[in-house]
Amino acid sequence: MASDIRMQSLAKPVTVAEYLFTRLHQIGIRSVHGLPGDFNLVALDYVPKCGLNWVGSVNELNAAYAADGYARAKGISAIVTTFGVGELSALNGIAGAYSEHVPVVHIVGCPSTISQRNGMLLHHTLGNGDFNVFANMSAQISCEVAKLMKPAEIADQIDHTLRECWVQSRPVYLWLPTDMVEKKVEGQRLDTPIDLSEPKNDPEREDYVVDVVLKYLHAAKNPVVLVDACAVRHRCLVEVRDLIKKTGLPVFVTPMGKGGVNETTSTYGGVYAGSGSSPAVKARVEGADLILSIGSLKSDFNTAGFSYRLSQLNTIDFHHDHCVVRYSEYPGVAMKGVLRKVIERVDLSKLSLGKPMNGVVNEVTKNRDDSSTITQAWFWPRIGEYLKQGDLVVTETGTSNFGIWETKFPPEVTGITQVFWGSIGWSVGAAQGAALGARDMCKDCRTILFVGDGSFQLTAQEVSTILRHGLRMTIFLIYNEGYTIERHIHGMDAEYNDIKKWNYADFPTVCGATEKESKSFIVKTKDELEKLLKDKSFNEAKGLQFVELWMPKEDAPRALKITAEISAKNNARTD
Amino acid sequence: MASDIRMQSLAKPVTVAEYLFTRLHQIGIRSVHGLPGDFNLVALDYVPKCGLNWVGSVNELNAAYAADGYARAKGISAIVTTFGVGELSALNGIAGAYSEHVPVVHIVGCPSTISQRNGMLLHHTLGNGDFNVFANMSAQISCEVAKLMKPAEIADQIDHTLRECWVQSRPVYLWLPTDMVEKKVEGQRLDTPIDLSEPKNDPEREDYVVDVVLKYLHAAKNPVVLVDACAVRHRCLVEVRDLIKKTGLPVFVTPMGKGGVNETTSTYGGVYAGSGSSPAVKARVEGADLILSIGSLKSDFNTAGFSYRLSQLNTIDFHHDHCVVRYSEYPGVAMKGVLRKVIERVDLSKLSLGKPMNGVVNEVTKNRDDSSTITQAWFWPRIGEYLKQGDLVVTETGTSNFGIWETKFPPEVTGITQVFWGSIGWSVGAAQGAALGARDMCKDCRTILFVGDGSFQLTAQEVSTILRHGLRMTIFLIYNEGYTIERHIHGMDAEYNDIKKWNYADFPTVCGATEKESKSFIVKTKDELEKLLKDKSFNEAKGLQFVELWMPKEDAPRALKITAEISAKNNARTD
Ligand SMILES: Cc1ncc(C[n+]2csc(CCOP(=O)(O)OP(=O)(O)O)c2C)c(N)n1
Ligand SMILES: Cc1ncc(C[n+]2csc(CCOP(=O)(O)OP(=O)(O)O)c2C)c(N)n1
Ligand SMILES: [Mg+2]
Ligand SMILES: [Mg+2]
Repeated sequence: MASDIRMQSLAKPVTVAEYLFTRLHQIGIRSVHGLPGDFNLVALDYVPKCGLNWVGSVNELNAAYAADGYARAKGISAIVTTFGVGELSALNGIAGAYSEHVPVVHIVGCPSTISQRNGMLLHHTLGNGDFNVFANMSAQISCEVAKLMKPAEIADQIDHTLRECWVQSRPVYLWLPTDMVEKKVEGQRLDTPIDLSEPKNDPEREDYVVDVVLKYLHAAKNPVVLVDACAVRHRCLVEVRDLIKKTGLPVFVTPMGKGGVNETTSTYGGVYAGSGSSPAVKARVEGADLILSIGSLKSDFNTAGFSYRLSQLNTIDFHHDHCVVRYSEYPGVAMKGVLRKVIERVDLSKLSLGKPMNGVVNEVTKNRDDSSTITQAWFWPRIGEYLKQGDLVVTETGTSNFGIWETKFPPEVTGITQVFWGSIGWSVGAAQGAALGARDMCKDCRTILFVGDGSFQLTAQEVSTILRHGLRMTIFLIYNEGYTIERHIHGMDAEYNDIKKWNYADFPTVCGATEKESKSFIVKTKDELEKLLKDKSFNEAKGLQFVELWMPKEDAPRALKITAEISAKNNARTD
Repeated sequence: MASDIRMQSLAKPVTVAEYLFTRLHQIGIRSVHGLPGDFNLVALDYVPKCGLNWVGSVNELNAAYAADGYARAKGISAIVTTFGVGELSALNGIAGAYSEHVPVVHIVGCPSTISQRNGMLLHHTLGNGDFNVFANMSAQISCEVAKLMKPAEIADQIDHTLRECWVQSRPVYLWLPTDMVEKKVEGQRLDTPIDLSEPKNDPEREDYVVDVVLKYLHAAKNPVVLVDACAVRHRCLVEVRDLIKKTGLPVFVTPMGKGGVNETTSTYGGVYAGSGSSPAVKARVEGADLILSIGSLKSDFNTAGFSYRLSQLNTIDFHHDHCVVRYSEYPGVAMKGVLRKVIERVDLSKLSLGKPMNGVVNEVTKNRDDSSTITQAWFWPRIGEYLKQGDLVVTETGTSNFGIWETKFPPEVTGITQVFWGSIGWSVGAAQGAALGARDMCKDCRTILFVGDGSFQLTAQEVSTILRHGLRMTIFLIYNEGYTIERHIHGMDAEYNDIKKWNYADFPTVCGATEKESKSFIVKTKDELEKLLKDKSFNEAKGLQFVELWMPKEDAPRALKITAEISAKNNARTD
């Protein structure tokens, strides 16, 4: 009754589902990941109606990983799951997005408000009448939770939640009861896009910080820029690019910042990660008298076990929600505005650039030994020569995440990794999502995935989704008989670091791939790899290519060995 | 220092890891599921040392499902995961065990107490210095959480937690920091096993309830027994068997109670689930003037959408922690003790048994049509004739879970389903765990899994674990082009109910199976199935057998259609 009266006052009534999915489309989402379940089926009818593509994921964890990858490539993403069973399966993937600042909209179809009120003993419940348990869990790993329970509030809730997702660059949780799906809300609101603009800094405070930054920058003898995770994740790469271009400052990236700057510019110096860095990089960064550290996230694996040797007295930290100059903190002053003004106001005549940089090269020859074996040392620089402008490169926790430090990216390569959260299996989902995101942006780029055999086994069925959508992807599966990274931390020969050998190269076929849709290769020697990497059709293929790449069981990139040793020590510390 | 002094006072110092794993062995666990991670590696060294078998699961969700299955077959189980990424991946599986009363010990290797105290920015954290988030999530789905942080308390914590797991028959969570793994605790305690005995009822209260039960039982004209989930899960099947044997009462099972009684006894009447039951079953149960309802769990899918037509005035409910006679409640009076005394004290001369029962048959001929197509109606009774004494039968959410109602089990068949929690993909893990559990009990029985093509895709890689351990398993994969159960709820032709067609039968090979280890079959007609089911070597095979079984896309068991319709209505209700 009451709702009938209210509805009459709606200028342009639309269903909640239509409102929600139209908003997703407006903020840039084109494909929605997830799985159906009886509590979300009716809502899913609206996905195609609102111009969105339903991915039809193989399981919810993969869907969450894929949504993460999609957001990294396209800006933001969405996943739909069903109450309890679906949403909990996705939790680890969403937690990763939270931890790594990735904006993912998680929509959970749940029992009707009536069933909830009556505490019905429905399937997918714990049997205790508590319908809020799962949402409470998700609240821990979401920057906003909205339960869409009252039609009059829903449009506001949706708009607010999507804005938070974007601005905070973290997952949000939308809880959609079956009886709300087709309730009517004001469709006229859809004529005005959601405001996604970043909150502006207070100008006086901002100016103050800019002055302080410039004071130190102008005074420095050999300053450097260090680009890290949150520069990427909080959309400051344009500011980074402009800063470097204008100043010509030497620039380095952390493992999580890799791909954030053009590695072919002469002032690019390589990957800095404390003791994990190459000696030249370490010397230059740690010898600097000022580090402009942009978006840093100093986790153990991003710093080779907290092995930075930098003084805070030489550091200016730019963060998405605050800045720190030496020990002076400026809460609420976001880097974006500060960096823009620094770029505008920097006095080039007062800038010292230190010793000129030499640029970075792929050290292929230096790392080539006489054996036919594909070594980690040789492989990663060699891959640098295979990569092309515009490639999307995804690497997995394990040897890949460390090896890729030695790969020089051509221009406009996007690097996607999950160094901080580090959940294995993530990369297969993330690569699918990223490739789809790129295609949804009308980019015809290659997505190239490097994944260990161990990690691949966790989420292998994502290959099915890659095929289902005919994505353009090349997978290098590093076959090294198990969990090499773990071997270097503890248990080199332990049974628990062994895995079952699969016929990896047949995986696409088992998922239904035809010869046209997918090609597989088994590559055991340097020469075989050379041949493949030079093959024109391999380089230009449009569908899936699957390369099973043999590497020695105990071989690991230099940086991994260093990090693993520090990690093991930290775990063992008892005082 | 302090710890040195304490250690000197230990009569027989053993490490925490050794203590824990020895306790697991003592309570009946022989195989431990899970994956390594740098926060649990050192602990894992103790698994073989304590006589336990490391499963080496393919991912944590599968591991949790498998632990669930192992516990259902063997009584209790354990899974080891790593902090954050590992444990969160397992959450949905553990939640299912909580919901369905399955005792699973979840051990999580986590950062050292020192790292926690220092709030270090470690991998697998959310970056907010809060190390407790994940344990807090697990607390929602565990009957006990123990953080092993102080050596002096650890042995007590472990003993108490394992007892709770067993007695409450629900998951527990043990949090094991890296620096506690090799701390010393009192090993002499291990000479005394953990007390796993059920708490005894207060004798006077128990006698009172027994008298009331007997009063109604002796007065009833046509009483029946109805066996449900918690009779199985809370280990009351011996009492059920003795009750039936002594009294000769007609006995029925619910879908979740299936397998709980010997279906070849003449007083067994079949599956009762309200409107989902066969007319004869419905008439007999709903016509009874007394229902002894043992371990009931009246969820929607277990009652064909809450369609029981039973009066509470005719019902006596026996639960694991209380009893209800008509409307009189007896909290704290557990069924086990009550049932035992009812069996001892029932006066057979006062018992009316109503109309004699006819026993149950597999209705194969009646359900056989002229087509060559394998129909759901024909298949399930036909399977009843294929099953053998001692088989372990696992069914998945989807058509299988409803079809199996029509299958009459030979004696000593264990039925394993997850009707209440209903997470798809569960069955593949659960079957692996159950088969391993059976083998760990030195049973050389067949494990037979019925799983839908949709469900299989979520956890397909569990086939690898089945092969790795050479388990004896026959998988019937129902290939019906997607989510048939969902189609019957909503969206018969919707894209979101479609899945990619895999070459399912090749899956074992891709996981590395040799011809000796695994055989695959594609079965499209009744005749082909008949031939296979009669084949001697198929019946007696020791390794893996994989049957891709073609069934029509829209075909569903009768009971599923009824339940789906009620479910859809409930979801759509808006008043
Ligand atoms: C979900 C999850 N489970 C467990 C781990 C612990 N872990 C980290 S790396 C790794 C092994 C990865 O092996 P592989 O992918 O083969 O990499 P490589 O051999 O190249 O090092 C494991 C088990 C994790 N990070 N995430
Ligand atoms: C983890 C999880 N995700 C989603 C669902 C919703 N769901 C229930 S049954 C089902 C389809 C099962 O399809 P299939 O296994 O092919 O069974 P069948 O075709 O025999 O009905 C889905 C998607 C669920 N129960 N659990
Ligand atoms: Mg490996
Ligand atoms: Mg199916």
